[in-house]
Amino acid sequence: MKNTATLLITCPDTKGIVAAIAQFLYEHNANILHADQHQDAENNLFLMRVEWDLSDFNVAVADFEQAFGPVAQRFAMTWQLKLSEQKTRMAIMVSQYDHCLADLLHRHHSGELACEIPLIISNHRDTEKLAAFYGIDFHYLPMTKETKSEVEAQQFALFDRYQIDLIVLARYMQILSPEFVARYPQRIINIHHSFLPAFIGARPYHRAFERGVKLIGATSHYVTEVLDEGPIIEQDLARISHRDQVEDLIQKGRDLERIVLSKAVRWHIEHRILLYANKTVIFD
Amino acid sequence: MKNTATLLITCPDTKGIVAAIAQFLYEHNANILHADQHQDAENNLFLMRVEWDLSDFNVAVADFEQAFGPVAQRFAMTWQLKLSEQKTRMAIMVSQYDHCLADLLHRHHSGELACEIPLIISNHRDTEKLAAFYGIDFHYLPMTKETKSEVEAQQFALFDRYQIDLIVLARYMQILSPEFVARYPQRIINIHHSFLPAFIGARPYHRAFERGVKLIGATSHYVTEVLDEGPIIEQDLARISHRDQVEDLIQKGRDLERIVLSKAVRWHIEHRILLYANKTVIFD
Amino acid sequence: MKNTATLLITCPDTKGIVAAIAQFLYEHNANILHADQHQDAENNLFLMRVEWDLSDFNVAVADFEQAFGPVAQRFAMTWQLKLSEQKTRMAIMVSQYDHCLADLLHRHHSGELACEIPLIISNHRDTEKLAAFYGIDFHYLPMTKETKSEVEAQQFALFDRYQIDLIVLARYMQILSPEFVARYPQRIINIHHSFLPAFIGARPYHRAFERGVKLIGATSHYVTEVLDEGPIIEQDLARISHRDQVEDLIQKGRDLERIVLSKAVRWHIEHRILLYANKTVIFD
Amino acid sequence: MKNTATLLITCPDTKGIVAAIAQFLYEHNANILHADQHQDAENNLFLMRVEWDLSDFNVAVADFEQAFGPVAQRFAMTWQLKLSEQKTRMAIMVSQYDHCLADLLHRHHSGELACEIPLIISNHRDTEKLAAFYGIDFHYLPMTKETKSEVEAQQFALFDRYQIDLIVLARYMQILSPEFVARYPQRIINIHHSFLPAFIGARPYHRAFERGVKLIGATSHYVTEVLDEGPIIEQDLARISHRDQVEDLIQKGRDLERIVLSKAVRWHIEHRILLYANKTVIFD
Repeated sequence: MKNTATLLITCPDTKGIVAAIAQFLYEHNANILHADQHQDAENNLFLMRVEWDLSDFNVAVADFEQAFGPVAQRFAMTWQLKLSEQKTRMAIMVSQYDHCLADLLHRHHSGELACEIPLIISNHRDTEKLAAFYGIDFHYLPMTKETKSEVEAQQFALFDRYQIDLIVLARYMQILSPEFVARYPQRIINIHHSFLPAFIGARPYHRAFERGVKLIGATSHYVTEVLDEGPIIEQDLARISHRDQVEDLIQKGRDLERIVLSKAVRWHIEHRILLYANKTVIFD
Repeated sequence: MKNTATLLITCPDTKGIVAAIAQFLYEHNANILHADQHQDAENNLFLMRVEWDLSDFNVAVADFEQAFGPVAQRFAMTWQLKLSEQKTRMAIMVSQYDHCLADLLHRHHSGELACEIPLIISNHRDTEKLAAFYGIDFHYLPMTKETKSEVEAQQFALFDRYQIDLIVLARYMQILSPEFVARYPQRIINIHHSFLPAFIGARPYHRAFERGVKLIGATSHYVTEVLDEGPIIEQDLARISHRDQVEDLIQKGRDLERIVLSKAVRWHIEHRILLYANKTVIFD
Repeated sequence: MKNTATLLITCPDTKGIVAAIAQFLYEHNANILHADQHQDAENNLFLMRVEWDLSDFNVAVADFEQAFGPVAQRFAMTWQLKLSEQKTRMAIMVSQYDHCLADLLHRHHSGELACEIPLIISNHRDTEKLAAFYGIDFHYLPMTKETKSEVEAQQFALFDRYQIDLIVLARYMQILSPEFVARYPQRIINIHHSFLPAFIGARPYHRAFERGVKLIGATSHYVTEVLDEGPIIEQDLARISHRDQVEDLIQKGRDLERIVLSKAVRWHIEHRILLYANKTVIFD
Repeated sequence: MKNTATLLITCPDTKGIVAAIAQFLYEHNANILHADQHQDAENNLFLMRVEWDLSDFNVAVADFEQAFGPVAQRFAMTWQLKLSEQKTRMAIMVSQYDHCLADLLHRHHSGELACEIPLIISNHRDTEKLAAFYGIDFHYLPMTKETKSEVEAQQFALFDRYQIDLIVLARYMQILSPEFVARYPQRIINIHHSFLPAFIGARPYHRAFERGVKLIGATSHYVTEVLDEGPIIEQDLARISHRDQVEDLIQKGRDLERIVLSKAVRWHIEHRILLYANKTVIFD
């Protein structure tokens, strides 16, 4: 596995940006592995992701900010540098619906998700054995309306203790408080079991069944203060027919949820997602 | 082309329905070509479509009601008999967006749609030549807020004169009056350029773009009194990315609209659709 | 869970079959839950699947053959009766590629697959712990060219001992001997990691990559004597682009394989598959 | 419509390529609209497409080769410069199957395909009126085994006379001679009605039906000397079931063929396709 650096850039669009970045990387002997950019003409925005092999690169990571500073300032860039050796530390929150959890854990186990998963939190005990099987710490934190703020405080403490960078709601079935959401901006990914913006809120499969749609969907998105309104990362759909009952929708939906959530997680931990205007740009 | 009869049945679900229908058809020497049924346990409903070759059938069409009456009464059936030789007479209403119209006309021309298309109505002159090319009467009926009810009366007169059974809104871009809708129940098919119930109403592609969805859709449905709330006949979706601008959504959407509308039309004219509880059952 | 019976019928197509079957079931007070039939005009074949609730049915299972005999003989039917309480006993054969195995086990655990899984056989030890987690007997049977027939004999003995009805090759990566295949007709399901008939044989993802296809596929099928030529049960595809390397194809393919294999298994154990002319009819 | 230039580049991959190109464009005041690149590590290849607005660009088109020469030579580039104002001149060859032709003509008419279509050639008269409707010259050139080389010579003369850049086989149903193919390298696009490499050659829908596949496909590709083996541009698939007869496959396939062929044509005329190793890179 190569040790690579990934630079994510957002700035106003103008002439010369790519030339400046490419020249900087060339001068410092970077071997570029992937580069992708996007221009939004309407918003006059330039976004870029560039990944290079660190082995020949002649700027130490500690000195990167100083070295890249002049380029960044010239174009008023917002930027982040991510290193492949610094793996994202992910916590998974789950209810008794364990299909997304089991899927994420198996993908992680088989090497498909290059992150650490040190922590699983649930308001049910159902997934405790599965967590143990994969050797992951499991914390059982049941919650009532009354204890919500207290339990969330415990959750925050766990996130701190385990140095969590990303929180994945793998069918957690609880609405986070505004404080929770505000504390982890662009660091909470949820799976919603409908094709958003259709069927926002509770019981989407039941409402899809009642409406008589011909396809059901699933949507992974970053969690923001407004329920199910955060930036969409990935969506997919499956065909249904009049022969499908609600139970069939739920079953078919599980396959969608697994795939749609796992893609969002993978793109996040590989630093492939940039956000603007409540939308995602996926550099896949 | 065989001359066939298609029987569509809806009734409360109980034991013995299929036995009675199958026995009736057998006794009268029907050669069954297709049979499909659906049971809705929750609503206690039985729905069936059965199509048979009329060549050996020993009941004259004129006598069918009398012959089948006892079976229908025993099970409290709502039923319709459709003959393949009595082709649906379809009118198409269109604006200047002609892609669905051109598609329907070409499909009809190539034999894919077994119906008559004697009439095209538009509030623009753009499609007049296309209508002429296919030898179809074209009526130009522009409309303002003030003339709406007067123009709709002209449209009703045309539907009467041309003996129209089915009205297809092929991107007509006008909202029909409640009188119009009430006059042709389950006989108006619309194409909406979103995945309903997402983006009900105007400018769905623009709103899909703003929301940042990862797939765009199209929906064909029967028109009812509530805008975009009628029974869904067919839906489909296409993947988009951040590289797609609104114009790209519109272009990709055209392919969806063509396919989704043409399927709805075909299923309707082949008598494959049954309606209940604001949903469609498609016997395809 | 209702105790139901499922009758699968194949016979020459003629008039009166449905009437006779429906009458038989009605006379014996069967509450039909699902019925579906298919006619193949070219081959003059009639195929049917009918499932009913056994609670009111007035024929004992032991007497069914005698009671139904006259109907079956009249139409020269080949038929099978399956009871929902007699669950299929499934063995899974697997290599070190464990994604399909993990998927099947999780689906079984969560109630999606109504069968027994008493036995897992592998030529690698990698999946032994996973088998133990789900409480399933695991047999490690490595194999060389020289020991193949001897090891297969051990496998047959295990299938006998565990009273196996269905053998699922969940990426087993070994070619079964003709004796093995002949011993379990229509009882071995394989997952092939391509869209058959494209890329029959070894290394399909590598060959798909070399050919430059724009979609990759997976196919589940019954195993017959000719490699990858058995009746196809299910297929699906995923889009790829020039940005995808072979490793990406393999990763994307795993999702296809999981879904395509699990559908085949579910349809088989729910007695939804009929075979003729090297094809499957899926009554879903 | 902006007047833009598109530069397509292929060269061995090494450090500094993007920096050099971006610097060249920046120095000459190019306003970059789109840029996309691809690296093939295995083949050590770098491919790039960059499109810029010509309005501020300070190199005259006539001088581009000289100005860009040093960059091109330094990296041993193969390159092409395409101007949006120089539209591709496309000839369509067609049999009596006119659905792809009608689709391409309507898309062109509605502005979706930014090319010229001065010429239609057919071995049948069926599409003559359609050509006339869109005001395109139609040449009827029937062909027998004996007259093939003579008729192809007439076709070459027509391509010369109409200054044709791209030949689209829109279900032409004739195999081109090796001379024909060799004369127009990477300038002939065909639509094959299967998911290549499955069902190479004649009657693919019939063979798909016989094999019992669960999805049918269509493939657009550049024509090379080996039948159906040229670089694949686009593919798509549609689900079928046992209820579909060959005629249904043909009908469903027509929708695939239209979409898959029109995408290939659009990408070609927008200079989005680069070729290497018998594969296409699509910069969409």
